[in-house]
Amino acid sequence: MKKAVVLLSGGMDSATVLAMAAAQGFDCHALSVDYGQRHHAELAAAQRVAQELGAREHRVVNIDLTGFGGSSLTDKKIAVSQQPTEGIPLTYVPARNTIMLALALAWAEVLQARDIFIGVNAVDYSGYPDCRPAYIEAFERMANLATKAAVEGHPLAVHAPLQHMSKAEIIRQGLALGVDFSHTVSCYQADESGRACGVCDACRLRHTGFVAAGIGDTTRYRVL
Amino acid sequence: MKKAVVLLSGGMDSATVLAMAAAQGFDCHALSVDYGQRHHAELAAAQRVAQELGAREHRVVNIDLTGFGGSSLTDKKIAVSQQPTEGIPLTYVPARNTIMLALALAWAEVLQARDIFIGVNAVDYSGYPDCRPAYIEAFERMANLATKAAVEGHPLAVHAPLQHMSKAEIIRQGLALGVDFSHTVSCYQADESGRACGVCDACRLRHTGFVAAGIGDTTRYRVL
Repeated sequence: MKKAVVLLSGGMDSATVLAMAAAQGFDCHALSVDYGQRHHAELAAAQRVAQELGAREHRVVNIDLTGFGGSSLTDKKIAVSQQPTEGIPLTYVPARNTIMLALALAWAEVLQARDIFIGVNAVDYSGYPDCRPAYIEAFERMANLATKAAVEGHPLAVHAPLQHMSKAEIIRQGLALGVDFSHTVSCYQADESGRACGVCDACRLRHTGFVAAGIGDTTRYRVL
Repeated sequence: MKKAVVLLSGGMDSATVLAMAAAQGFDCHALSVDYGQRHHAELAAAQRVAQELGAREHRVVNIDLTGFGGSSLTDKKIAVSQQPTEGIPLTYVPARNTIMLALALAWAEVLQARDIFIGVNAVDYSGYPDCRPAYIEAFERMANLATKAAVEGHPLAVHAPLQHMSKAEIIRQGLALGVDFSHTVSCYQADESGRACGVCDACRLRHTGFVAAGIGDTTRYRVL
């Protein structure tokens, strides 16, 4: 079996990506990054999802980005928006995908894995620059100049299979591959047991996806 | 004054780069990464060098790469070589420069800095793939697709001013700009007070540089 490193946040997108990588026959090594986000419920969700979807192992790398600030996800002085925003939202974490892909690259090299999976998708393009296809391609190109493995003739591929899928398509794909979305956490301000607020951007996108897919929303919401 | 993020390991190369960036008029924000290296003497050296060379501030980001292993610098089960090696040395840390540049990118974006400095140099090319000019260019290209700042029309430049310099040239340049090399630590296995072993690859390259520059080696060595 070919090994792959799968970035797993604990949200619905990365859970679906893990299920897709497993369905393609990869031996999946799931990687989560604890970067000082507001709550740890999504890391607990990542651990459960990794087990349920048969990942070989799940690791959490700790890296403290709160000292840099600049995002409502890592700086508690910036409130999480409850209204749709124009342009790049405050929940954007500077260089987050670059840092997470760099860590995936490091682990892939040690594991001798040639494939990295990340759950960026079309809905995020307009808001987050590091979710665009051109960015993913540029990261892959850079990675293939960065590592001992690439120099020795083993190129690396960065897979972003959700890139051109809508939230509704992601939900259908995940359900078809056995993802239990009630165990995933997308909310930017979930409580410690993983219950969602229902009002942040992430909750809104997620709920809209269930509605568009014509599937009942299995998200666990708390009463605000 | 234009802000810059300068990656500072505590070794002679990055100290010289910091002095060069300051001499070019940048307001320097020095960044060190504690990635689980064998000793902390180089981080103590980085702190001292940052002060001596007038950096605005110095931050250390903690990230534990020891769980990934794969290098004699982060895995204590792999011995540090005391002989020159063919190909990529065991001291290569998987994706290290990619991880460090990604962190510099994140901080630069928060600071609204458009310039990152890194002390990779020609002597390292043959051994470390992520020291090559093509790699640095590919990182810069990727970075300019990754960030909110770049999307909003503020491109980022990655400067590697030592790229085409020999160790002797670096030493002369550093001395001309006031770097006290006795306060820098290059040794892969320095003791906690920063005294060098004198026999590892890094010590050998450093000493050879002083000899080639015709300058007395001010490195503090310990008796092995």
